[in-house]
Amino acid sequence: MIIDPHQVTVETGSSYPEIFESAVAGRIKQRLGNAAGLKNFGVNLTRLAPGSRSALRHWHSHQDEFIYVLQGAITLVTGEGEQVLRAGMAAGFPAGTEDGHHLINRSDTDVAYLEVGDRTAQDRVSYPDNDLVAVQTELGWKFSHRDGAPYL
Amino acid sequence: MIIDPHQVTVETGSSYPEIFESAVAGRIKQRLGNAAGLKNFGVNLTRLAPGSRSALRHWHSHQDEFIYVLQGAITLVTGEGEQVLRAGMAAGFPAGTEDGHHLINRSDTDVAYLEVGDRTAQDRVSYPDNDLVAVQTELGWKFSHRDGAPYL
Repeated sequence: MIIDPHQVTVETGSSYPEIFESAVAGRIKQRLGNAAGLKNFGVNLTRLAPGSRSALRHWHSHQDEFIYVLQGAITLVTGEGEQVLRAGMAAGFPAGTEDGHHLINRSDTDVAYLEVGDRTAQDRVSYPDNDLVAVQTELGWKFSHRDGAPYL
Repeated sequence: MIIDPHQVTVETGSSYPEIFESAVAGRIKQRLGNAAGLKNFGVNLTRLAPGSRSALRHWHSHQDEFIYVLQGAITLVTGEGEQVLRAGMAAGFPAGTEDGHHLINRSDTDVAYLEVGDRTAQDRVSYPDNDLVAVQTELGWKFSHRDGAPYL
């Protein structure tokens, strides 16, 4: 099935608990893989306004992640510091590598990238900078404090 | 792990039986996902010279496929005919959809695209135009005639 991104719904916001919602203000996503009927992995076309972030810094226990920069200069933040990725560059984050990462647009123009992630079961997401854990359930991501207490 | 495609090995050829090798002459691939250590899915940066094809026309039983056009105009061939995809357009091929597909560069300049595929086990690839079947094994793709006889 052919997908013209101009025809795909643009999503804002996130499924984070409300106190973390502001972390991804300025981020928009278009779920191209879902639009094509794919189930084994997702491919999103994501845009970040200046100052915006891809996500809270995080890493996955079971799911691989990959990004490819389409437009602009994007700053990748990991436990080791910051590096700038320009259009045509990529990055991969293997499952189980305990190095939280996210992307920040520190430039003054919009940036765009493709992000790919599989849907391997029993995934758990760790957030080294926040009192937050996510586990994958059949109903979607379930967030809690690190001690397991739910966000209310 | 950051991946600069300029540093990733460029691969030619294929794992097809020898009589089908010419089908993908003019195709080069760079395995960006593998270079980043990913295992659950592959992401290749693929380029087709004028007249070249992505693959024999095929479909997968268990694995999803996705492509995103980075450069040029690429002709998608399916059982329903041909459609041209330009840079910024995408296509997805859900597992189990019995519609053989491939890409052909019918233009006079090189084209480039990202291709994503997962590695779900027990995959079987069907080739509607050829006496060929592929099944996934731990050692890679095993090709045979449709009646199961091996290619020698």
